[in-house]
Formats: sequence, C-alpha cells, structure tokens
Amino acid sequence: MISAAYAATTPPPLFTPSTPRWLAAELRTQETPLILWRRHLHRMPELGWMEFGTAGFLAAKLLGWGWRLTLGEDALCRAARMGVPPAEDMRRAAARAAAEGLPPEWLSVFADGMTAVRADIHLGPESRDCPLLILRTDMDALAINECRSEDHLPVREAFASLHSGIMHACGHDGHAAILLGLARLLARHRDDFPHPLAVRLLFQPAEEGARGAAAMISAGALDGADILLGMHIGLTARRTGQLVCGADGFLGTTKLDACFTGCPAHAAGAPEEGRNALLAASAAALGLHAISRHGEGQTRVCAGRLAAGENRNAIPAHALLELEVRGATQATHSWLEAEARRVIAGAAGLWNCDVSITTAGSAPAASSDPRLRARLLRCAAAVPFFREPVPAAAFGASEDFSAMMEAVRQAGGQAASVLIGSRLAGGHHTPRFDFDERILLPALSLLAHACLDIAASPS
Amino acid sequence: MISAAYAATTPPPLFTPSTPRWLAAELRTQETPLILWRRHLHRMPELGWMEFGTAGFLAAKLLGWGWRLTLGEDALCRAARMGVPPAEDMRRAAARAAAEGLPPEWLSVFADGMTAVRADIHLGPESRDCPLLILRTDMDALAINECRSEDHLPVREAFASLHSGIMHACGHDGHAAILLGLARLLARHRDDFPHPLAVRLLFQPAEEGARGAAAMISAGALDGADILLGMHIGLTARRTGQLVCGADGFLGTTKLDACFTGCPAHAAGAPEEGRNALLAASAAALGLHAISRHGEGQTRVCAGRLAAGENRNAIPAHALLELEVRGATQATHSWLEAEARRVIAGAAGLWNCDVSITTAGSAPAASSDPRLRARLLRCAAAVPFFREPVPAAAFGASEDFSAMMEAVRQAGGQAASVLIGSRLAGGHHTPRFDFDERILLPALSLLAHACLDIAASPS
Amino acid sequence: MISAAYAATTPPPLFTPSTPRWLAAELRTQETPLILWRRHLHRMPELGWMEFGTAGFLAAKLLGWGWRLTLGEDALCRAARMGVPPAEDMRRAAARAAAEGLPPEWLSVFADGMTAVRADIHLGPESRDCPLLILRTDMDALAINECRSEDHLPVREAFASLHSGIMHACGHDGHAAILLGLARLLARHRDDFPHPLAVRLLFQPAEEGARGAAAMISAGALDGADILLGMHIGLTARRTGQLVCGADGFLGTTKLDACFTGCPAHAAGAPEEGRNALLAASAAALGLHAISRHGEGQTRVCAGRLAAGENRNAIPAHALLELEVRGATQATHSWLEAEARRVIAGAAGLWNCDVSITTAGSAPAASSDPRLRARLLRCAAAVPFFREPVPAAAFGASEDFSAMMEAVRQAGGQAASVLIGSRLAGGHHTPRFDFDERILLPALSLLAHACLDIAASPS
Amino acid sequence: MISAAYAATTPPPLFTPSTPRWLAAELRTQETPLILWRRHLHRMPELGWMEFGTAGFLAAKLLGWGWRLTLGEDALCRAARMGVPPAEDMRRAAARAAAEGLPPEWLSVFADGMTAVRADIHLGPESRDCPLLILRTDMDALAINECRSEDHLPVREAFASLHSGIMHACGHDGHAAILLGLARLLARHRDDFPHPLAVRLLFQPAEEGARGAAAMISAGALDGADILLGMHIGLTARRTGQLVCGADGFLGTTKLDACFTGCPAHAAGAPEEGRNALLAASAAALGLHAISRHGEGQTRVCAGRLAAGENRNAIPAHALLELEVRGATQATHSWLEAEARRVIAGAAGLWNCDVSITTAGSAPAASSDPRLRARLLRCAAAVPFFREPVPAAAFGASEDFSAMMEAVRQAGGQAASVLIGSRLAGGHHTPRFDFDERILLPALSLLAHACLDIAASPS
Repeated sequence: MISAAYAATTPPPLFTPSTPRWLAAELRTQETPLILWRRHLHRMPELGWMEFGTAGFLAAKLLGWGWRLTLGEDALCRAARMGVPPAEDMRRAAARAAAEGLPPEWLSVFADGMTAVRADIHLGPESRDCPLLILRTDMDALAINECRSEDHLPVREAFASLHSGIMHACGHDGHAAILLGLARLLARHRDDFPHPLAVRLLFQPAEEGARGAAAMISAGALDGADILLGMHIGLTARRTGQLVCGADGFLGTTKLDACFTGCPAHAAGAPEEGRNALLAASAAALGLHAISRHGEGQTRVCAGRLAAGENRNAIPAHALLELEVRGATQATHSWLEAEARRVIAGAAGLWNCDVSITTAGSAPAASSDPRLRARLLRCAAAVPFFREPVPAAAFGASEDFSAMMEAVRQAGGQAASVLIGSRLAGGHHTPRFDFDERILLPALSLLAHACLDIAASPS
Repeated sequence: MISAAYAATTPPPLFTPSTPRWLAAELRTQETPLILWRRHLHRMPELGWMEFGTAGFLAAKLLGWGWRLTLGEDALCRAARMGVPPAEDMRRAAARAAAEGLPPEWLSVFADGMTAVRADIHLGPESRDCPLLILRTDMDALAINECRSEDHLPVREAFASLHSGIMHACGHDGHAAILLGLARLLARHRDDFPHPLAVRLLFQPAEEGARGAAAMISAGALDGADILLGMHIGLTARRTGQLVCGADGFLGTTKLDACFTGCPAHAAGAPEEGRNALLAASAAALGLHAISRHGEGQTRVCAGRLAAGENRNAIPAHALLELEVRGATQATHSWLEAEARRVIAGAAGLWNCDVSITTAGSAPAASSDPRLRARLLRCAAAVPFFREPVPAAAFGASEDFSAMMEAVRQAGGQAASVLIGSRLAGGHHTPRFDFDERILLPALSLLAHACLDIAASPS
Repeated sequence: MISAAYAATTPPPLFTPSTPRWLAAELRTQETPLILWRRHLHRMPELGWMEFGTAGFLAAKLLGWGWRLTLGEDALCRAARMGVPPAEDMRRAAARAAAEGLPPEWLSVFADGMTAVRADIHLGPESRDCPLLILRTDMDALAINECRSEDHLPVREAFASLHSGIMHACGHDGHAAILLGLARLLARHRDDFPHPLAVRLLFQPAEEGARGAAAMISAGALDGADILLGMHIGLTARRTGQLVCGADGFLGTTKLDACFTGCPAHAAGAPEEGRNALLAASAAALGLHAISRHGEGQTRVCAGRLAAGENRNAIPAHALLELEVRGATQATHSWLEAEARRVIAGAAGLWNCDVSITTAGSAPAASSDPRLRARLLRCAAAVPFFREPVPAAAFGASEDFSAMMEAVRQAGGQAASVLIGSRLAGGHHTPRFDFDERILLPALSLLAHACLDIAASPS
Repeated sequence: MISAAYAATTPPPLFTPSTPRWLAAELRTQETPLILWRRHLHRMPELGWMEFGTAGFLAAKLLGWGWRLTLGEDALCRAARMGVPPAEDMRRAAARAAAEGLPPEWLSVFADGMTAVRADIHLGPESRDCPLLILRTDMDALAINECRSEDHLPVREAFASLHSGIMHACGHDGHAAILLGLARLLARHRDDFPHPLAVRLLFQPAEEGARGAAAMISAGALDGADILLGMHIGLTARRTGQLVCGADGFLGTTKLDACFTGCPAHAAGAPEEGRNALLAASAAALGLHAISRHGEGQTRVCAGRLAAGENRNAIPAHALLELEVRGATQATHSWLEAEARRVIAGAAGLWNCDVSITTAGSAPAASSDPRLRARLLRCAAAVPFFREPVPAAAFGASEDFSAMMEAVRQAGGQAASVLIGSRLAGGHHTPRFDFDERILLPALSLLAHACLDIAASPS
C-alpha cells in the first residue's frame, strides 16, 4: 500500500543520540500508521461543521488509547459557531458518513454540526500543578474538485478524494494525522515521562473561513493553557526540511455575507417598479475594493463571490455577496470591517434595496510568542531532518488559529504556530495540492520532543 | 375530473346563428378535450429545446388525425437555434420524458433539442392556388417553482406541475391546447370547407428567451405564407371576454450572455496577480444600465443575472452576466445592442479580463398588420363570448413571434398576434400564474371562424 | 448697417389683402428696427439674473411708448428665483452694464438680479371686461464663446457678442426684438383696435436652466390671463417659412446642484482619515445615469458638470455635481426627481460624505392648448410668409415657459408656444448658432394679427 | 522685527567646546539673517517653475558671496521638466516678480520656467581629488490660501504671504534659508577648512508634484557626487529638538493627468449621440481606487481632482482627472502605474471616449544610506540642540529628492535626507502650517559640522 517511491527513501534522521530510547523506538513504529491515517482522511474529506466521519474516526481512536474526551456542547459553544451550513447540506453529509460506516452513536454526538473533539491526558508523575500544554489541529476540507490526472500522486497511489467536489487541499489531513500519531505515542508512554505534564488535544472543525476556533474557545477549550501549539504544513516554508518555529503576522480577518433584497419587476413593462439588488451588490463590490488604503499597515478586501438575479427579463430582486476583509493589526482590521459594512449599507441605499450582513467567520491578527519560538528552535535541534529551522517568518495570510493564540496570550500563556516545510505538488487551495508525506514523522518527533522539553522546564 | 366550479358556469356564447351548423356542433364537443389537454401539458412542463414529452404528445395526436408532419432538421435549422442548453441538461430531460412514457422513436426524432413540430393539411376542394394560412404556438415552460398553496387552482384541481422547478407560467400550455383543438376540428371537417385553404400549424420550441423562432424560419417554416396568426393569453388583456385582434409595438430584443474570464489569485498573499472577473461583470452591469436613453424611442436594458467567483478568499476569475436589451424600433434596438457590446468589452478591459459574448436569443420589433386586424375584428363578431374586442393594443414587451411576423411582412404576407383576454390568478412569470380556462373554447371558435373567412376571401 | 444680402431679398409676404391698412403700413416700417434691436441685443448678451443692460434697454423703450411698467419686487418674487448666481458675478455684470451706459436709476431698479420687466397696455375702446392676452419672451444668453470665424454672419456683419464667453445662442435676442416690435406697433395703434383688449408683455429673466418663470408667476404675472402666448425660434422647425402653432410635449425638468462634503487627508500618510467627495460624486453620476427607464414614458437624466477636489495629493473633500432630470409626464418627472435625490444621497452615504441638494431650476411637463393652436393656424393664413404652418409638433425638450403654460391652463385659460421656423447656421447652444433674420417681421405680423383676432372673438 | 517671544528664549546650544572657534563665532552671527531670509521668502511665495523672485533673490546673494553659478539650460534640462504650467500663468507670475523688483536681467535668465540655481565653491587647500558634497533644497510654494487669523504667527509678525492663494506651507522657505546661511558661512570661511572639499548647492524648482528633480539630474547636477544631503523640516519629527539623520521609505510616485474627450449632444433631444467624458472619468476614478492592494508592500492611489463638463443640459464632452500613484518599492510603484494607465484607458473605452495621459510628475522609491546616517548621527553630537537624534525613521510619503538620492546611490555615492524636528502650528499643506524658527540655526550648525567631517574623512 505504501508506494515504492516512499519505501526507497532513506529514513530521515528523526532524532539524535540524546533522544530517550523509548521515544526513538516508538518513532520507528509510526511511519506507516501516519501515512495510512493521512491517506484515509484524504480519501474522505468533509466540509466545515460536517466533519462527521473525520471526527468519528479520530474520536474512536483517542478513546481506544485512553484519552479523556470532551464532546458536543462541552467542546463547542453552539451559538458561537460562524458560517454554519444549511440543515439540508448537513443532513446529506451525515447520511454519507453513515453510509460510509460511521456508527449511529457517533453520528448523534456530532449531529447538527457539533463536530469538535477535545481530548485530555496526564503524563508522568502525578501532580496538581503541572503545566497544561494544548495542541490544536484543524480537520475540514475545501469545496474543490481534486485533480484526477495520473501525475497527481493521490491518484497514482489511490487515495484521492472519494467525495466529489471536496478535497483536502490545505493539509488538514496531515495536521490531524500528526496529532493522532502524537496521541498514540503519548498514550503509550505516559509513564516514561520523567516530569508531569497535562496535555490537551483540540481537533477543531471549520477552520476554512475562520469559522470554528471561536466556538471552541467559548466552550473553554483553552482554559488554563500554559502553552498552545498549532502547526501548518507548507505556506511560506515550501521546501522539505524547512521549519518555521513560530509564524508571525497573521492577518486579522472577518468574513461577511451581504444579502441584498430589492423588488422584482418586468424589465420591459415596468422596470421603474423594480429595486435592483444586482446593481446594489455590484456597486458594493466595486465600492469595497475602492475602500481607502490605510496608513498604518497592510489591508486586504475581497468580494469573492456574487450570485444575483434569476432571470434576464426581470429586475433582479436578490443578491448574495460573499466577502472578506483583512488587516495587519487590530486597528486596521476593525477599521476596515467598519468601512466594509458602511459601503455595503451605502450601496444598498443607493439602489433602494434592503441588506442584511452576517458574520460568516472571523479571526484576529496575531503573532507567535518569541519565548516559545526560542524553545521550539531548541527542540528542533533534536530532529536533524529539519535542516533549515528558523525562529520566525511572516504568515502573510489568515488562519483562525490566531483566535486561539490571542486568547492564550491575553490570559498570560504562550502560543506559537509552527510551519512545517514541504515540497508541494501544487499551491494551497488548488486541485493539484499535495504535500510531501516524509514530513509527517519528523513533525511528530518535534512535537514529542517539545512535550518532554515543556514538562522538564515549564516556563 | 372537470371541477364543479367550471361545470356550473353557463356555457359561453361561442358562436352565432350564422355559424355553420357543423362548426357549432363540433365546438360543443371540444370543451372537455381542450381542458384535459391543457391540464396534461401543464402537469408536464418542459424547458426550451427540451420539450420532448410535449412535442411527442402533440405530434402523435396530429399524426393520428391525418396531418402531414415535418420534423427534425426539416422543421428546424440546427445552427440557427439560440440559447441551447448544455447536453447534460438535455440528457436528463430526455430521460425524464422517456420515464414518463415517451416512446423511443419519438425521442430519437427530437434528440438533441430538435423539438419543433410542423403540420400541414389541405381544407376544402382541391386547388393549386389556395392561400396558405399559418398558425403558430409556443410550447416551452419556465424555470419557476409552481405555487403549492391550496388556493392555487392547479393544486386544488390536481394538475400542478409534476416537474419540480419548472412551470407553465406564461400560458403556452393553453396556446398549444387551442391549436391542438383546431387541429382536430380542421382534420374532422376538411371536407366541410366550401373554399380551399392550406393550413400549417407551427409548434415552436424555446419561445422564452426569444430563442426558437429564427431556427424554424431558417428551416422554411414560413415559406409561402399568406397569413400568419399567433396568439397570447392575457398580457394587456386581463379580463375574460377581452380580445385584442392585433398586438402592436413588440419591442425588438437581444439576449446576451457575457462570460468574463480573469485570473485567480490568493486574496491575501498576492491579490495583484489576480484579474478580477467579478468586478469586470459588476462594472459592466452598472455600465449597461447607464447607457444613454435614446431620443427616438423607448429602450430597455436589464442585466438580470450575475454569477461570479467561487470563494471569498480568492480573486474571482469567472463571471457570467446574462442580460437583455430592447428597443421600440429597429434603429434603437440595433444601437442599444451595439452599445451593450461595447460596454461589456470596455468593462472587461477596465478590469483586465477577457470576455466572450454569446447571443442567447433575439427578436425584432414588429407590429400586427392593420388589414389582418380588421379581418379578425370582423371574425370576432361571430364569437359573442368576446364582449370587448378591440382592433389593436400595445404589446409593450417582446415575443419571438415578432421574428415570424417580420419575416412574413417582408415577404409580402400579413401577420397578426391575437391577445386573448383572461382573468389571471397571478402575473405572467410568477408562481401563482393561472388563466381562466373558459377562454380556450372561444379562442378555438375564433380561429375556426378565421379559417373559414380567409378561405372565403383570401385577400 | 443692414447687409446687402438682406437688402436684396424680396420682401416676404407679411400680410394679405384682408389685413387692415394701418397694420400693413405699420409692418412695412418695422423691418429695420427689428433687425437693429436684435443685433443690439446680440452684441450685449447677459447671463440669467444679470440682464441689466438688456432689461434697461427694453424698459426704457416701453416706457417711452406709453406702456405701464411693473418692475422689481412687483414683477418678480425674490424668494422664488432659482439658480441665482453669486453676488460677485452679479456685481461684475452690473458694473459692465454701467460702463456700457446703463443709467444708474435703472441699475438700482434691477439690482441684485431683479431683472424682470412687465408691461401693460389697453387697446381699443374702453371696457372693464375685455380679455387679457399675455405675451412672454425670454432675455438671457448662454455661457458660450461665440464663433469668431469670418463665415459666421454676426462676425461678418459686426454684431457678434462683445462679452467674451457669453452669447445669444438660443434666439432670445430675436424673441425679445419681436416683442419689442409688437410693443411699438400696439402702442402706436391702440386706437385702431375695433375691439377692446388688455395686453401684457412679460420679459422674463433666466430662462436658461428653467430658473425664472416661477418667480414671475409668484409675483402675479399671469393673474387674470385669458390667453398666453410664447414663442421660440427654430428647434424642430428648422426651415424658414415653417410655423408650429402650438408646441407639444414639453418635458418636465428639474435642475439640481448636489454639493458633496467629505474630509481631506494626506493621500500617502493617512488616506483612511479622508472622506472622499470626488468618489461620492462619481458614484452619484454613474448611479444617476443608471436609474431605470420608466414604462410610462420617456425620461432623461444628465449629470452635466462635475468639479471635485483641489489637489492630487489630498483626499478630495469637496465636489459639486450639476445635473438635470426630465420626464414626458408629471408622473415620470416626479418619480425621476425622487430617484435622483435618492441616488445622490445614497452615493454620499456609500462614500461617507455629506451632501446638500439645491434646486437650481424647474419646469413642468406641458402642451399647447388645442383651441388656441387652431386659432393661431387661422391667423397664420394672414401671413403667407409661413408657407408650412402646422397645428402642432413635439417640442422634445424643456423650456420654463411650460411653467407659465401650466399655470394658465390650471387657472382655466389657454396657452400656446409658437415655434417660428428658421434656417439655422448652427444648432442651438453652439458657438455657430445663428437664425434667419427674415423671420422677425413675419413673426411680428402673426402676433399682431393674433391680437386682432383675440380682441374680436375672445373665446 | 524679531518677535519678543523669540528674543526671550535662551539661545539654543548650537555647538560644543570641540567646535572650531571660527565656526562657533560665525554661527552666533547668523540667527537674525536666517530668520529675515526665511520671512522674506515666506512673504513672497511662488509656485513651481515660477520661482522667479525666489531664485533671483538667492542667486544674487550667492553671486555676491563668490559662489560660481550655473543657470538656465546648464542647470536644468528643459525637456525633462514635468508639469510645467501654462504660458499665461508663467507670464503673470513673471510680471509680478518684476513688479516686486526683480531686475530684468534675472528675469531673462529664468524666463519660461528655467528657475533652477546651482552654485559651486571649493573649500580648504587646493586639491584635484577632493570629495564633492552636494546639498539640495527646494524653493516652491503651494496653491493654498494662508490663514489670516491673528493667532497665526506669520500674521502676528507680519510676514504672511503677500501672494493671494499661494503659501509656503511645506517649509521650503526654511530649507532655502538654511542653505543660504550655509552658503554665506562657507564662503566667508573657505580658508578655515583644514581639508579640501568641493561643495555644490542645488536650489531646485517645482518639488511639489515631484516635477523638478529629474530635470536638474538630466542637466548633470549630480555628476561626480560623493555625498548628497537634503533636508526636510517636520514630517514625522514634530518636536523641536528631534533629528532624523536619514529618512527611509520614500514612496515612489507618479503624477498623471488623464484628459478624456467624448462628444457633446443635447441631453434631451439626442443623448444617444453623445459620448460622455464625465462618466468615463468617474468610472476611472472609482476604478483607480479599486485597483488591487499589492502583496509586496504598501501602495497608494488618489484621484484628487476632477473637472468635467460645461453645462448640465449637454452630454459632457471633456473631463480632466488629476491623480497620483505611490508604491513602497520600485516593483509596486511600476506595477501600480501600469495598472492605473490600464484602468484609465479601460474607463475611456467603456464610455467610448478618447483619453490622453500625461506624466505630470514622478519620483522613485528610495532610502537614506546607512553609512551616511551613521556619520550624521556622529555630527549631531556636536549640536546639543538636537536632544533626540535618531539614525533613521520612515518618511511615509514622497519627495522628489528621492530621484536625486537614487541617482547618487546608483552612481556609487551616498545620499541621505535629514528630517529636522519642529513643533508645527498646523500640518504640512494646510493654511495654518508654521514651523519653529528656532530650528534654523541648529540645522545650519549641523550642516557646517557635516562639511568639516566629510572633508576630514571623505569615506
């Protein structure tokens, strides 16, 4: 099942002589499971808030390994979820997961989009005061049709998406597999830890569109966190062997849906009776892109999708404009969101339409903690596979992990987002995206070493 | 099956003592078939170029009654069809028609959207030189979800659309039923005609969007026409008993699809690499509506549907804008179409996108022939049901029957479009549209009297 | 001073044998004065509300001939004037008029833009109940630089404008000359009238921009009017010898000034602090032109002038947009004005600017009275010069005489606007405009005959 | 003449014990002249390319002190000048300068906008190989009406602008006064210099709008430069006593004039015959502001002035749009200028207008040389007045001195722009702008110390 290409590669140096023997031995056993898990997840991609099969697969394993699970309303604040899809979409996705073997008891746990999984374990000697390390991954896929060409590895190796129109094109399958590997490793070796450490794993739904983090935070997922770690494959680290210990400059972002309502009318007989929602949305789109630049930092605005009108011979009475704004700082982000809302309302007024604006996602600007970056750089020395570790690099985009980072920072903890370098077959969010599976095991090694390091010297 | 409500009404005065006895007797037998046929068609609505079941139902009856049929390439010029739907849509519609009982031989006749039916008969004594009267109806339905409320008569009487999302909301079911009734009447009584007359019936596909008339004309459907008659239920004649003998002022119209292609880019990372098709289409929509008024007559422009972009975090690379233009005269119509094409190209240029423009439909400005209007007013006197006949009224919209009217006028013949007044439950092209079925039989009577009149005094 | 070209033409047939001898004799004496007066006015053009020299010239003559003058506040309601120019402009224009010889006593009468002149006379036998005929002319010129080419007759004949940037390019010099001729004729022959008639002449300021009529009406200029006559040279009657007895279809119009106020900011340092009035005005201009067509009749909208911003490196904080709307009916006119105000306010909102909208002119839709048209057609028979008299023709534009016509119509009187055909050297409102002076005398003859006719048969 | 307020302040510490005695003594004599010169220039502000009186005043002094002048075509490449005003404006400005006492011989030197002044001197012992230090100032003022309020110091002290509508609101009067002071100091003490040094002073016209630097460069003004120094009062250094030794991040900028030509038409009669330049310019303005942000750095765009149309009742046939673009890097600047040109051309096409685009100004992105910054920081230690010296700070705007900096850098020399901190009464480019005159003498001291330092250790 594992391709010849992979079998042939020299095993990467995953540890050094100073790595504890139990850890070195364990790592040697993880290569195949990591790849199998990643490929399983890749084959069964699910959109945000509908990760029924994905969450069920992960939760079942965690439970089997002895992790303490928190699920449903305890893991996710229902009201704080953003961009929840229509009930009909959810129903169809749940039915598919059931058809693919998800037991009904899991389906009822995750029903109605409550797909977050939180898992806790205690490592090492008993202790009341031991530090709490939280590691977070995302799980959702994208509405992209995966490339079907023979030169696309997932096709050649037969793990391309089985769900038409949905694809893991952002590496979340890899992130989840790495955390699953860590879960197995820690569970097996909880007594090998010389120092006490509480570890929590967060499997977050709906990262795409910045929709899920806030609802896990609201449910208390980060309470008591001393250290928070997240990761992303690729991005500015596009060579296998690169490692960014802490990404900086997450752009704050808000995703908005503007729904314009006008009044239909026959386009020939009485056009004056219409109120044209298509023109309102068009004026809004142009106006949004023409919002002023900001003297204090980079901003972004994108009216990325517009669906308006039904019929060419009627004044269009409905239009939906989906957009996002981003800012390099809290100030520019807030200013831009306010401007965007004003422009949308203004365009509606200009064309005599009503408009309602819904927040479909949101994440703040954030950066990694310098102390934690330094610690991770130290840990990276234990994983020679990472030939090019750097303390920091610009993220240059948005990720709703930034909401978790900010929450931990404001509560006095430390947070960092690790970028794991990988050669990519195609860019993120494209049908040819694919990362280098050889990075899975080194990433797991790094996290395991970080656990040991944090337990040994908590602050 | 006929509702109590209808059964209770006093039979309308469909003829006068001067009507031939055979005709009076025949008309008495037609009420139930007309309503049954109309309701059958209403139940099975089909979109333009996909009238498989409709055309098969009609053609089978005509054949059975002895009409000479012209079908396929002989009835319809394949290349002159406009706005032909994607092959996948056609395949699905054909499969549905087959599942609903359409025999395979008919399906192969109409395959690939060749759904026109032309039928010829000779009435009265043999003659080489007899006049040719052509009557035309449309057959297609609209992409509208029929109202499901109990106060909607088709629901109460159980003949509402069985095809979700498709509805006869413009009366074409009625038009076709009337012409089918005339076909039966003429076939049964061909020898009762004292004067010779050649009659041709045209069952035209894809009237909605002005897509079908040109392709029937190109196939020779109107060759040799002396007189052309079409009809429409309702419109400016919204009271049962009204009759407009010849509608005037059909607006010339062109339907255009503008497909903009830009270049996608990550909205945060490198927005400058994108070429924004959504903004190009938005600018085009605003620009189209801002085209100058014309000093020589009324014009209309409507950018009625816009679908752009896929995802809010990518610069949108695709946009489809569906629009129409209309003009009261040939000059204003041509000028406006040229302006619209220029604006679309200009907007594409402004936003650095490519654009392709497809003609999805077209019909010229036209008016009814005054002599033919006068003849029909005379004939209407034989049908007292029409208490309010008027020689002419403004159409104020577009219909691709105008293409046929113009073709006949230019070839030296006479053409008119009759508006048959009817109380309406809801406006044309709305989910509550329904006309008064009591008009079907008087309309048939009028056409039958017109046939006799034309045969008797051809010019 | 009169050119050879004119001297050579055969005197046009200005009357018939049935014309009274005193009138025929008088007309023979008027040719030279009419042309001299017209050329004097043409040489000294003045913009609306600043017709100091013009009004002074006319009023002095009327006074000398025995007309009873009404001036100042009695002739013009100060508050009802629209589009009054800045005080500085007025001061400069008054100074020029003084420099050109206007006596100070006249200047004080007309000061501050109170430039209307109303003159009354009684003709024929004394009578309390005689009908009141009102004739109106306009007096103002346009902000156009007159053509200086030798092939422009006013240059060749040395009567081109002496006021740089101002020109009589709409024939108001001719209208006023004709009415001045009539004033002399009536004053000389008041006792020759066999039937009593009260005649009032209105010399209206600021017709351009539809600014002046309302203020004369408010001052009572039309009180008691039985018949109101106005005239225009040219327009749809572009051949010398044509005559339209009553123009129809004056478009209702409103002239609006939209003054946008934003907030300036350094375009590089802090553009986000600005509120961009230039973009607000630009969006308004585009939005205005994109207002829907109206199903009930022709409309027009023109954002004709825009001045915005001061400096390319500052966010523009000020913009002035001058526009007009027109409608063929009261309903379309009102609807369009409301739409325009909404669009302007909406565009201001979209760009976060304040806006104030001022009405700079206004005139309603109107048409000539059919009975009066018939009377004038009868009178025209007495002036064979008019070889092509027609009862009516479409005006197709706006004129604030329509406000007077509507006021008289609503008060039960009759009103008509006569179009006097003339070959034109260039279109109205262009630098090469010039009309055929041979029409002055026939026009005077027509009006004189109309006076006799009205006196003889008042209703 | 010097105000009590100034007289009362403790003399600022302009030097240290290590300052040469001749320099310390000289500095003590300069306070009054510097202020007088600055106030003279402030009183007589002149716009770019029309600095006739200013250049004459400066050149006469330089000549008197023994500087070698380069003027006219030798100092300025006529063809490389950008944004040269209309001849009529120049004529008026020259006449004013003459009326204010400028001798005719100077007027002929500067005629037609050739207002640059270049002055050279040799300091210290003779030497062929001594380094060349160039110092540059700007001289032009802004089209701003100076504040006339009593609380505005120039009003209170009677040196407010005597030229209505023109004001030194950007400190160029101060820059020129400082360089004039340096010129007197160096000329008096050329033999006190222990090491040889060639010094060149550049008095550049038309800095506002980035119009003048290129033309001096083209004329060879910078040939052979080892070190180039410029300065600006205020900006990000708004406290008296602050000093930025080398400003960074000059934004590259291009100023464009887009002149749209359409076709006029009567707005009611035949609007379809028009081609609307006002709408073309409006669409361009909106489109310019909607150009995408750039992933590689800050950009700015400002359509700052628009004048379109003549008359509200005619389709506007002319529009002038004045705009600028800026970019933080050469790449973003070039990209943005190309985008802007494309948008303008596209908007013209959309509205069927012609457009011509003129470059009215341009300057590249640039930064100060780090070595030179370090040297100046060292020199600043000799002027204790500057309590807050910093090596660098962001400029955050544009200045056409950047063109000179880039030219010197590319030729292997070093360049820096010094920001001299000053309390400001109002922001730059506002009617209340005024700087703190106490900074003039310390700035002169700094430059004098820099001359000594550079002569002593050229590299």
